[in-house]
Amino acid sequence: MSASQKRFESVCARAREAMLLHSTADTLEWDERTGMPIAAGEYRAQQISTLRALVHERRTDSAYGDDLQQLIQESENEDPHGAVAATAKQLHRDWERDCKLPTELVERISQATVRGQQKWDAARQADDFSIFEETLEHVINLKRESGQRLSEGTDRSVYEALLDEYEPDAKVNDIQQVFDDLRTPLVQLIAAIKESSRQPDTSILERTYCIDDQRDFSHYVAEQIGFDFERGRLDETSHPFCTTLGPHDCRILTRYDPHWLPAGLFGTMHEAGHGMYEQGLRPDWFGLPPGSYVSLGIHESQSRLWENQVGRSRPFWEWLYPQTNEAFQSQLDGISLDTFHFAINAVRPSLIRVEADEATYNLHIIIRFDLEQQLIDGSLKVKDLPDAWNARYQSDLGICPPSDADGVLQDVHWSAGLIGYFPTYTLGNAAAAQLFDAASEQIGDLDELFARGEFRLLLDWLRERIHFDGRCYSGSELIERATGSPLSANHLINYLKSKLEPLYGIIES
Amino acid sequence: MSASQKRFESVCARAREAMLLHSTADTLEWDERTGMPIAAGEYRAQQISTLRALVHERRTDSAYGDDLQQLIQESENEDPHGAVAATAKQLHRDWERDCKLPTELVERISQATVRGQQKWDAARQADDFSIFEETLEHVINLKRESGQRLSEGTDRSVYEALLDEYEPDAKVNDIQQVFDDLRTPLVQLIAAIKESSRQPDTSILERTYCIDDQRDFSHYVAEQIGFDFERGRLDETSHPFCTTLGPHDCRILTRYDPHWLPAGLFGTMHEAGHGMYEQGLRPDWFGLPPGSYVSLGIHESQSRLWENQVGRSRPFWEWLYPQTNEAFQSQLDGISLDTFHFAINAVRPSLIRVEADEATYNLHIIIRFDLEQQLIDGSLKVKDLPDAWNARYQSDLGICPPSDADGVLQDVHWSAGLIGYFPTYTLGNAAAAQLFDAASEQIGDLDELFARGEFRLLLDWLRERIHFDGRCYSGSELIERATGSPLSANHLINYLKSKLEPLYGIIES
Repeated sequence: MSASQKRFESVCARAREAMLLHSTADTLEWDERTGMPIAAGEYRAQQISTLRALVHERRTDSAYGDDLQQLIQESENEDPHGAVAATAKQLHRDWERDCKLPTELVERISQATVRGQQKWDAARQADDFSIFEETLEHVINLKRESGQRLSEGTDRSVYEALLDEYEPDAKVNDIQQVFDDLRTPLVQLIAAIKESSRQPDTSILERTYCIDDQRDFSHYVAEQIGFDFERGRLDETSHPFCTTLGPHDCRILTRYDPHWLPAGLFGTMHEAGHGMYEQGLRPDWFGLPPGSYVSLGIHESQSRLWENQVGRSRPFWEWLYPQTNEAFQSQLDGISLDTFHFAINAVRPSLIRVEADEATYNLHIIIRFDLEQQLIDGSLKVKDLPDAWNARYQSDLGICPPSDADGVLQDVHWSAGLIGYFPTYTLGNAAAAQLFDAASEQIGDLDELFARGEFRLLLDWLRERIHFDGRCYSGSELIERATGSPLSANHLINYLKSKLEPLYGIIES
Repeated sequence: MSASQKRFESVCARAREAMLLHSTADTLEWDERTGMPIAAGEYRAQQISTLRALVHERRTDSAYGDDLQQLIQESENEDPHGAVAATAKQLHRDWERDCKLPTELVERISQATVRGQQKWDAARQADDFSIFEETLEHVINLKRESGQRLSEGTDRSVYEALLDEYEPDAKVNDIQQVFDDLRTPLVQLIAAIKESSRQPDTSILERTYCIDDQRDFSHYVAEQIGFDFERGRLDETSHPFCTTLGPHDCRILTRYDPHWLPAGLFGTMHEAGHGMYEQGLRPDWFGLPPGSYVSLGIHESQSRLWENQVGRSRPFWEWLYPQTNEAFQSQLDGISLDTFHFAINAVRPSLIRVEADEATYNLHIIIRFDLEQQLIDGSLKVKDLPDAWNARYQSDLGICPPSDADGVLQDVHWSAGLIGYFPTYTLGNAAAAQLFDAASEQIGDLDELFARGEFRLLLDWLRERIHFDGRCYSGSELIERATGSPLSANHLINYLKSKLEPLYGIIES
């Protein structure tokens, strides 16, 4: 074995060991959010922060950094996009980033965010922001400190340095551009929809859908579209998410509402989309860049594609609707497929992001994107956040949250320290539409496949074009390689118009 | 703060940090046994063994050992049974023991036993010992090596050194004595029962008891007898157990059989008994000797007391039986309380230890106690174990397992490396009877309390006499302090005779 190979082996072993502990902390968090006894929160926070600190120690080891630097030089001349080069480059990038954060800060952030999530949960249940205020302020302060350190010696703003953790190298201006490109046509579409005399009957989705039946049905759908239950689980939690605890252990979580069928079903498809991306990564590279997701925008493109481009399409329901009738007994008797399909594609400004329709969804994101930038730069105080939130919902969506639980307390992100995460949702929406168009062109008649309950070809296409490369290319490179052109907002706009205008009887002016 | 106080603080901080990681590994094991995706086993084994090795490193630190030794000297003159002295003495005992085992052996044992449990589960499901044979042989060899190292420089045998982990300072001869004292009267009692013309109708317990109903009912019973669900959970697994994941996080696990009501119900009461002991330990001393259970024999005394002395008593069912009828609809219509009570106290040689009646239970233990000693001293080969097992069941209980699943593969213990664990069950049975007699004398009419569903006084008594002292006294000291006399087999024999002879209409000769 050459010296360079030995170095590579040693670097991989260290990264894998850190990942072993990292995924252990993730397991503790999964457990915390699926039914840990409530009194156990304080001790759990200690456990998680101890593990996070151990991980941080390993990831900031100076000899490890030296090895990485040398490996980059050695591998760059060979295959710059090969697994070795990508591994060295990405791990060194992580190492540099991690070294900017002292272990005690990482530990403090970990403790604050575990407690933050506990407080957030309590505040949401009590519908009282004041329970959460002090904790959130603490989290924001710590994240600002973290962003300041991370931005030192770079051309990034404090906020961009935080964003970088979720969407590597993304710039606020670029995101703003995509948001602006989307905004005008979306606002026009939403206005036209609002004025249409043809409106869906969403009350059929509010009938009583027994939770046990929903659970079985969601499990079935997740399995049919390709989520592998031998390598994963589906559970319940107050705020749905997907987490990977090992190379063959992906956990998706959803929540069910007995009086709103789409919550559990599309929530499950969304998380299954995330899960199938994780399950499509190469297990032999688990914990290393070639076996890791590339960015949250790409991650979200996978979840949104399965939730929307697949799950809200008419051919999908040609296949699933007869089975839906059986699964929920008489709930949908006499309701035609068209009526049902129109109902699940209803567009209506609403309060809860995760339940928002595809057209208004991005307005929810823009509000969060603006507010979190203000929280970080200090122009908005945490104590003024609920008012600012409500004011923006009033001005942008024309509705005002009647309570904090349905307003500023609806998302777990900020309590968990995830600042700079929200914009990746809209980047993901745009990417999903663009990827789906490319897949349709390259695979052939997807409609016909969906109508037969056949999703394997689409999943394989995504595996080959997106999943299998891990972090060997950047997110934008991946999109361009898979679709032939850079990310653009056009695909999303065209997709929404071509689906929604016929449903609402809108004739383009 | 004095130098001695500082030393004490520092020692406690180190022990607590090791416990933080130890309980994290326990959480991974809990998760593994409550539904981890099957493909995730290999990675999980790596995670657990990495953590166990980190714990071992911390627990064998030489400066830590020096501090402990100095603390013992400093505290011995003050209060020899106080928390400081007990902490120093017990932690030093653990430290000495841990130092005898090299980290790589601990890691190998951890890997072997995590895989061992996976293999055992697969073998049990396939009802095929050969799947498990090689893995078990590996575990036995590693445990023998471990026992050899632990016994060096002591007067213990290799087997006793392993036993010591579960029942500190126990001697094989002493255990043999208790077993001998029990055996003759038990065999006589079982023979008399077998010959009795009065026999219970256990078929009423084999009717279909819907699992959902059993789950709700078991949860209710566990809560009523005192298990605190704000600080614990009840889940399901293939082999019931109880594990503590933090000072306020005790998890009990049971399994339900739709055609055998006692399995889930008494299994839950048994584990709840373990859980209430753990919940009765002082949370501020979590991870330190004053807040830790003293021995597995004492642990078992708590579970058996709630399962049997309480759960199989007539007054208990005077309270619970009317509710049982409601919980399972018409299953027990027309069945009198007496008939039901006789059925749940049926004595009949059977194959499965955890479902054995109280009288024959100890015969199951003696078989395991004998066989595991032979496995460790090498006089019995693993490949000959199934035959040896079946032969002993034939000779001791008069029945032969029709399959490995109901025979040698029924218990998880050996696969998990728990050698020397089994005898603690019978020590616990004897202690349960002795403690219950003392509680009855000291509290007053327990029957009357149970008939009203009132268990708090009994639980408080156990908390004060057993739980609250943690490891500050030895197990035998605790029994003597609580009951006024050393552990004896007499209480168990008298308890069984006084309950079973009237039920079976046996007139003592």
